[in-house]
Amino acid sequence: MRHCPGFSLLKAKRKQNTPKPGKPPLTLRVAIAQINTTVGDFKANAAKVRSSLKDARRMEADIVLFPELTLTGYPPEDLLLKSAFIEKNLDTLDQLTPHTQGLIALIGFAEPADGALYNAAAVLADGCNLGSYRKMRLPNYGVFDEKRYFREGDSPARLFYRGRHIGLSVCEDIWDSEGPSRSLHREGPLDLLLNISSSPYHKGKWKDRELMIRTRASELGAPVVYANLVGGQDELVFDGHSLVVLPDGTVLARGGGFVEDMIYADVPLPKKPAGKKPAPKAGPRVKTFRIAAPKTPKAKKPLPARAFSLPGEMEEVYQALVLGTRDYMQKNGFEKGVIGLSGGVDSALTAKIGCDAIGPENIVGVLMPSPYSSLGSIEDSLELANRLGIRTLTLPIEEAMHAYDHILAGAFEGTAPGVAEENLQARIRGNLLMALSNKMGWLVLTTGNKSEYSVGYCTLYGDMAGGFAVLKDVPKTWVYDLCRFVNERAGKEVIPENVLTKEPSAELRPDQKDSDSLPPYPLLDRVLSRYVEADHGLGQLSGLGLPAAEVRHIVQRVDANEYKRRQSPPGIKITPKSFGRDRRLPITNHFKG
Amino acid sequence: MRHCPGFSLLKAKRKQNTPKPGKPPLTLRVAIAQINTTVGDFKANAAKVRSSLKDARRMEADIVLFPELTLTGYPPEDLLLKSAFIEKNLDTLDQLTPHTQGLIALIGFAEPADGALYNAAAVLADGCNLGSYRKMRLPNYGVFDEKRYFREGDSPARLFYRGRHIGLSVCEDIWDSEGPSRSLHREGPLDLLLNISSSPYHKGKWKDRELMIRTRASELGAPVVYANLVGGQDELVFDGHSLVVLPDGTVLARGGGFVEDMIYADVPLPKKPAGKKPAPKAGPRVKTFRIAAPKTPKAKKPLPARAFSLPGEMEEVYQALVLGTRDYMQKNGFEKGVIGLSGGVDSALTAKIGCDAIGPENIVGVLMPSPYSSLGSIEDSLELANRLGIRTLTLPIEEAMHAYDHILAGAFEGTAPGVAEENLQARIRGNLLMALSNKMGWLVLTTGNKSEYSVGYCTLYGDMAGGFAVLKDVPKTWVYDLCRFVNERAGKEVIPENVLTKEPSAELRPDQKDSDSLPPYPLLDRVLSRYVEADHGLGQLSGLGLPAAEVRHIVQRVDANEYKRRQSPPGIKITPKSFGRDRRLPITNHFKG
Repeated sequence: MRHCPGFSLLKAKRKQNTPKPGKPPLTLRVAIAQINTTVGDFKANAAKVRSSLKDARRMEADIVLFPELTLTGYPPEDLLLKSAFIEKNLDTLDQLTPHTQGLIALIGFAEPADGALYNAAAVLADGCNLGSYRKMRLPNYGVFDEKRYFREGDSPARLFYRGRHIGLSVCEDIWDSEGPSRSLHREGPLDLLLNISSSPYHKGKWKDRELMIRTRASELGAPVVYANLVGGQDELVFDGHSLVVLPDGTVLARGGGFVEDMIYADVPLPKKPAGKKPAPKAGPRVKTFRIAAPKTPKAKKPLPARAFSLPGEMEEVYQALVLGTRDYMQKNGFEKGVIGLSGGVDSALTAKIGCDAIGPENIVGVLMPSPYSSLGSIEDSLELANRLGIRTLTLPIEEAMHAYDHILAGAFEGTAPGVAEENLQARIRGNLLMALSNKMGWLVLTTGNKSEYSVGYCTLYGDMAGGFAVLKDVPKTWVYDLCRFVNERAGKEVIPENVLTKEPSAELRPDQKDSDSLPPYPLLDRVLSRYVEADHGLGQLSGLGLPAAEVRHIVQRVDANEYKRRQSPPGIKITPKSFGRDRRLPITNHFKG
Repeated sequence: MRHCPGFSLLKAKRKQNTPKPGKPPLTLRVAIAQINTTVGDFKANAAKVRSSLKDARRMEADIVLFPELTLTGYPPEDLLLKSAFIEKNLDTLDQLTPHTQGLIALIGFAEPADGALYNAAAVLADGCNLGSYRKMRLPNYGVFDEKRYFREGDSPARLFYRGRHIGLSVCEDIWDSEGPSRSLHREGPLDLLLNISSSPYHKGKWKDRELMIRTRASELGAPVVYANLVGGQDELVFDGHSLVVLPDGTVLARGGGFVEDMIYADVPLPKKPAGKKPAPKAGPRVKTFRIAAPKTPKAKKPLPARAFSLPGEMEEVYQALVLGTRDYMQKNGFEKGVIGLSGGVDSALTAKIGCDAIGPENIVGVLMPSPYSSLGSIEDSLELANRLGIRTLTLPIEEAMHAYDHILAGAFEGTAPGVAEENLQARIRGNLLMALSNKMGWLVLTTGNKSEYSVGYCTLYGDMAGGFAVLKDVPKTWVYDLCRFVNERAGKEVIPENVLTKEPSAELRPDQKDSDSLPPYPLLDRVLSRYVEADHGLGQLSGLGLPAAEVRHIVQRVDANEYKRRQSPPGIKITPKSFGRDRRLPITNHFKG
């Protein structure tokens, strides 16, 4: 790392560090680089940082913030255990440092020290690396495993710049009102709090986040600048929605949702600069980075005004699904996707999301009718494909069904057709899609929804087969809501009304309906959201419109199908608790409810 | 919880607690209940505890130890987030307490307090619950996520019984020489240290554990009694191998490996009782449980001598595979297993393990020849089945291959046969096995080994299909070693020599050999163990007998096949780092090596 003679890392308590500011500014121009990084792609991530730094300089920003773990991407998971990975991240930071001339930049990286690793924000200023702030609150719940990798930092930190005290924090730090920002505040009020985050999406989370940040700004009596990551990484989507919030709760600036963005704001600071006489009390020692002011701070061109609009409920979910699908495909090198079209609502929505993610010209719909498929299903699928403008293939599966029947005739002799035969149909379809994937390099986009995955109303290696399960965390009732949103937004029936109104069926035997096996979806989803997402016990699941025996049966099915979910493709986290790394239950489990 | 007037939880520093012993005993009789618990099965786990308590009383033990988290089973994962689960575990503890008359028992449970949860050892004595010791070191690496659930305890604890100071610890606590036992020691030497553990198996781990325990006994100058769990839980096997170790390193008693066991030992204590004048220094406060001595300690019948033998390297791995398979099947309610027999070494070993796990009468071998199958493969499979005494089914797949060819003829027009067609064969076989599973309720035991899973030399939904992947963490070279062990142990060719000596082939096209696609397995495994298990970077993988380009290619294949492994069945952890919860890499990952 480069260290610079003109700057030094000093402890707040030392007298010689007492700041001697000029005339403190009434605003600071802050930039948030809400970029879409890729885990492990140091070169591409660094290129985005360089380009954002250049833009921030052009826009005369004082400070520019990047997302948490900017350089490695987030979450890097066990890549953090590889020393070569850590080295590469340090090299990248060194290479970026000279590009910060004329700016103060906060860049997230993984910092090894004292035999441990820290989730750190590098403080770079005017081409020099001044040191780092190390995240003090490490989340280790839900999808987070940060204590697996990192040690907690032990020093809150602030910048002292042009007579202003500016607190630093990383993601989780700011969620705790008794966290590091409070420790900073105790040493003298802050003029501004900065936070760099990689905060993953679930429905409505941006609202919780905004409320929390407004609360923090009000508690501290200082504006808060919050930079969030944007983009998809395996099962997670980061929604952006970066923020600049004033102490009175006003949102001064907001980053776009689900898009890369450069956000600029002239942040008004308290008239009377804070912290001129820090009064250290008991608590952790505060690191202070003293940063020289520009010799003659020049008047800046005013920032252009910018509007922001907030998404509706289903719009937000839809955008998350599109971004998560696009990024999974692009970051993993898939140009085209293939989807089995059943004529049902799940495959219709998946196809539409695929089109919005990578373009209808890159989506292939495959119809795989069996003798049990209704004419309506085929017609509805073709009509959907026509409206979406996607190519279709039709591969009837009857011949393969017969082949399996013959092969298994002896082994199955004397048994009545049942689940085994139904699953074979689903698996033939899974095989055909995978064969197309293997031959053409297309990614199979799987169509199952969360309600099905929850109760195991899906076939392992059959309709569960594929590379990415777009709707894996979307309850069936939301699938309908999303389809309606798509049609409303387009002002026309992109998804044919017939698909939305017919009774759901897997069509694996004559006249089969989902309702033969499952309660109505609105009732089912109500039980599932409480059991799966809120960890309610059987005793807390009454009064939801279903008899106790039926609730018990649902719970039993959820538990018994853990083994299927364990082999499911990744899919996008949409709810507060998704299957996968978020909800970690044993397969072998004798606990009932 | 029951609290008893005659016993109280006292702080060591208070004067009134100064022990007033009678004549301290020169030995204590300790029992270790090395039981096989089931996650969430409070009723069955409690029954095992009751029966062990009864046995310990019959054998006149003073103290009996149970494994860590005795009541919940280990690891309960996110079941710990369900309040109904925690309640049930507390109720179970209350129900067990009266069964401890005449004994001191350490029973592991999850203890909620102060809005947090602790991984605790209940101290039960003579029918009363005296309180708990709360684990202070929580592992959060490898397969462990304890910081996700638990808060660290803040007080070391000891028993004061018949003038003796007996330290308490839970699993990880004892691995750290600066851990809680050291804190206890600082307050005055211990006479004995107890540890309750659920320490999962990997090859040779029992040796590391034994070395660690001997070191700890020597450092403390006190005997150590170490109780470990036994049994399989999803991907983990707990190997037992409980221990009683004296300060000079002598192993006084050892629990069997991979079996339930009651271990008794008359543990000689230091002649001069320790800790009579505890000298508290700086450090955490120590909890002391004062336990009344029996009124007239009677002379005990001597314990019968017992021998123990230590397993050879491959014997140990083999036993782990058998126990892991048996417990996965039995705890999940499968009576029979089905295995695709290819004539190769992996399916032969899997079948043999299945036989030893649940009996040859419960294993069905399925031959699924294609036109590319050699006559030898069929003959070898039938010969193997004959030697194992298992039933076979023969289901030729050619008709299904033709059906897929016809269905896909249009879509595949103009392309040359390749991986897509090869994978279809594997998937037809996967489908047939799953159809048998669905129809008959048999568990499909998958046959792939770790070398294949590492480089993706396996077909998703094809040979990877199944409920339990027995050899998932066994490198190919060990597969051979295990087969030879099986034959040596039996003193005959249980696995036909021809299976062991022929060249490995997937037989998915004419004259295909594994060596067309992969380096020789001994060289491959050497690279894999360093890259996958030791996180070595590309720069550290030279000098292993393979050219750099080939090493790079292997590493690239390991990285690129993360998506396949994410959808693989669970399998038994055998190496220091298995795929699954142990090695958590992102699928979307641009880091090279």
